[in-house]
Amino acid sequence: MITSLDARTGAVVAEVAEETSEDEVGALCRRAGEVAPEMEALGRGGRAKMLSAMAATLEARRTEIVETADRETALGEARLGGELTRTCFQLRFMGEVITDGAYLEATIDHAGGTAMGPRPDLRRVLRPLGPVAVFGASNFPLAFSVPGGDTASALAAGCPVLAKVHPAHPATAVLCAEALMEGASAAGVDLPVISLVFGDTAGIQLVGHAAVKAVGFTGSLSGGRHLFELASRRPSPIPFYGELGALNAVVVAPGAAARRAEEIASGMAGSFSLGVGQFCTKPGLLLLPAGEVGERLSDALAEAVRPLQAGRMLSERIADAYGTGSEGLRSQPGVRVLAGGGAQGDGSGWWGAPLLLEATGASLDGPLAEECFGPVLVVVRYQGSAHLSQLLESLRPALTATLHAELPDDEAISRSVVEITSAKAGRLVWDGYPTGVAVAWAMHHGGPYPATTDPLHTSVGAAAVRRWLRPVCYQNFPQAMLPPELRDDPGRDNAVVRRVDGKLVLP
Amino acid sequence: MITSLDARTGAVVAEVAEETSEDEVGALCRRAGEVAPEMEALGRGGRAKMLSAMAATLEARRTEIVETADRETALGEARLGGELTRTCFQLRFMGEVITDGAYLEATIDHAGGTAMGPRPDLRRVLRPLGPVAVFGASNFPLAFSVPGGDTASALAAGCPVLAKVHPAHPATAVLCAEALMEGASAAGVDLPVISLVFGDTAGIQLVGHAAVKAVGFTGSLSGGRHLFELASRRPSPIPFYGELGALNAVVVAPGAAARRAEEIASGMAGSFSLGVGQFCTKPGLLLLPAGEVGERLSDALAEAVRPLQAGRMLSERIADAYGTGSEGLRSQPGVRVLAGGGAQGDGSGWWGAPLLLEATGASLDGPLAEECFGPVLVVVRYQGSAHLSQLLESLRPALTATLHAELPDDEAISRSVVEITSAKAGRLVWDGYPTGVAVAWAMHHGGPYPATTDPLHTSVGAAAVRRWLRPVCYQNFPQAMLPPELRDDPGRDNAVVRRVDGKLVLP
Repeated sequence: MITSLDARTGAVVAEVAEETSEDEVGALCRRAGEVAPEMEALGRGGRAKMLSAMAATLEARRTEIVETADRETALGEARLGGELTRTCFQLRFMGEVITDGAYLEATIDHAGGTAMGPRPDLRRVLRPLGPVAVFGASNFPLAFSVPGGDTASALAAGCPVLAKVHPAHPATAVLCAEALMEGASAAGVDLPVISLVFGDTAGIQLVGHAAVKAVGFTGSLSGGRHLFELASRRPSPIPFYGELGALNAVVVAPGAAARRAEEIASGMAGSFSLGVGQFCTKPGLLLLPAGEVGERLSDALAEAVRPLQAGRMLSERIADAYGTGSEGLRSQPGVRVLAGGGAQGDGSGWWGAPLLLEATGASLDGPLAEECFGPVLVVVRYQGSAHLSQLLESLRPALTATLHAELPDDEAISRSVVEITSAKAGRLVWDGYPTGVAVAWAMHHGGPYPATTDPLHTSVGAAAVRRWLRPVCYQNFPQAMLPPELRDDPGRDNAVVRRVDGKLVLP
Repeated sequence: MITSLDARTGAVVAEVAEETSEDEVGALCRRAGEVAPEMEALGRGGRAKMLSAMAATLEARRTEIVETADRETALGEARLGGELTRTCFQLRFMGEVITDGAYLEATIDHAGGTAMGPRPDLRRVLRPLGPVAVFGASNFPLAFSVPGGDTASALAAGCPVLAKVHPAHPATAVLCAEALMEGASAAGVDLPVISLVFGDTAGIQLVGHAAVKAVGFTGSLSGGRHLFELASRRPSPIPFYGELGALNAVVVAPGAAARRAEEIASGMAGSFSLGVGQFCTKPGLLLLPAGEVGERLSDALAEAVRPLQAGRMLSERIADAYGTGSEGLRSQPGVRVLAGGGAQGDGSGWWGAPLLLEATGASLDGPLAEECFGPVLVVVRYQGSAHLSQLLESLRPALTATLHAELPDDEAISRSVVEITSAKAGRLVWDGYPTGVAVAWAMHHGGPYPATTDPLHTSVGAAAVRRWLRPVCYQNFPQAMLPPELRDDPGRDNAVVRRVDGKLVLP
């Protein structure tokens, strides 16, 4: 039985659903396979309308959804209200992306002569892959879960979604799925465009089912890696787009440390403790210059961390892992506590206290090189640019890397930091903080493994839709048999940017 | 020792190289990792110039390369001359693709307000992944091997190439690598942009080496699947872009069979026997209508196949596999020989004879559902549209699917065939033959597994370059620290199409 817990007390509030049986998962997957061509046939216009209606029905049920999510996650109504707004924005944004139509990569090469002889008429477009399995994250019960970015981009692409419900917020998942289906219905789409499955066994079965053509996953490295290997070992392997988290580094160059110590200290304290450190973009490592300027920033940061209160964490499992992980960091040789790590809440529910550590060893390895999910930040002091480079080179890839620098003073060290980190992080932040991932055309939320399982793909931003598509090339096809966007005269509704005989042509 | 054989006699002509040792592979991979930033720093202009110079040096050594390749493969000088022309075209074409610059997907979102609060300045571009391992195919010693499409697209992207030499044409590989390096040098690029490794053990080591960031592979299902799994099981998994081959189906609708029986028979006979059937796009299955019109086409095809001669195959391994595979097909219940399968050459070297079979069973399974590499074609008669759909639904995905139809007579059956096959083939051919894969912007050479290991990616055409790239997003970056294509003023040489605040802007 999948139960909904009150994250503030640990009490069972409701029984949400039985674990989905093997037969039921099979039936849902087969049905999704049947629905797939109908979703494609809705066209971009039909799906954009559906996404917009889904945003509207989520909005209409805002109070109920936010209350339920708050009860299950203790993230607070303000944060969850903002997350719902983001979720609705994301659904509408994906509608804009498909309405624009450039994502189709429509390409036409008319028949003609080449150095290798005559070439037939060739026309290429991206088409939906088929049913997609989505595994949402505990820390974003809306924006990265059932109604989140993977679902929005898959529906936009034209792919039915089979969502594995996260056990930390099952009631929220059920409410959101209802709202999404109401939205579909309001837009005239009476198809099971999204289905829920419950339980880890059912989730594993999803990844292995022949009708499922790709997987989107946001979660832990161990869980994601396990499912990735299942997807790769299938008789017919499928793409697995996993966002597995990261140790995000923040570098402060000497000039910035000298001029903006208090500002950076305050920003860092806010960023690593935001949401009780439960972000995959949480900065986990702060590299400060050795010497007086770094000392001053480090002192200011400790000062800013001391008054921070412990906060409620998402689940017992996450709080336990944070306890074990932060203890592991504290017990490393050369690691000392600069501030925090004190009282752990009021005795009910699950708590995590902000913790600022300093590591004085020469290198970063073991737990110091891994993500610890929760409000802990490790400060390391670098002895000049060469030592900084060596430390950065030793880090594994991450979702983000951040640099605070003053130009022109810090130019040389900045170039070196940007060169090294741009090879191993998906997003580089200048004079800012990595928490906060805007939904925008230019966003990239990904990175080489272990940040994501596929370095080319993103789970946030316009490019997220491409994960659920595949190219089809039509050779020598009669006009009437082509998808409308590839016809000589596509008509007004299907006029999209195209590459025609090698040249981009705007609609 | 890696030896070069004469494919017409089986005799050893030369000892080409020792198998590359583990230490040597490690040194080559590390060196490629060091070279990667320098290749990126050449810029798109520098790399386009290099690719063009490489095409020129290959052209300059045409006689020597074609002679050597012909000795090692017996493909004949005409075919190999054409393949060299294609290979040079492909190198220059990839230069055009990167000069155009749209492949960078340059995207700029200026800072501004959103429904979720202020958004920072975000700029996204695709950057090279790092060293790439390339495994070429036996059947295209030039266009899909050391100087082939994987190499051309990886070099264009800015990635050094580590090419595993195919044992069927090692001398050709060495010559081509020399010519490519001469070309690089002529363009002022004195870097090891391509390195060769010899031997299967060295190839496996390449796939596992930490410095290698992606793999391109063209070859057999079994070999490709094995390497794919190695790439997925690495501590840090990497993308594996494998093109593994396919059973390519050709459907003839009743109207086309009635009106163009002789023409289609002649075209099919040419297509499945072209190059002794040694193409991954070779049609392996021909679906004809039951009844008189199908009978007439089938008879005409048998007539066209009867005079076809056996041809020399690429290697002993391939000829043996063809012998075993075609024997396996002949021995299936309900399978009979319509034509061919006769004399097997002059006793020297390795031969394959065209073979036309008919399968009369109700379903396609076992060997009838698998690719058999070589000049064999199986004819199946369908009893109406429903039976045809059922046969097509039972097929595994493939690189291509082909339909011969007469509109409007065959419209209903055509729509049904296109709907089914477009879900499982990467290229759909109308009134043509699948052999022949043009290098063009709109080409797609791929498909769901087992056609390729990744359904989104292609090994031919402009989109091939994307396999070797990853996005990086720059948040709030100073102009001078951005890649030139993302600056407000990119300068004339770096002006590319960009999406700015949601709108595509041509340069």
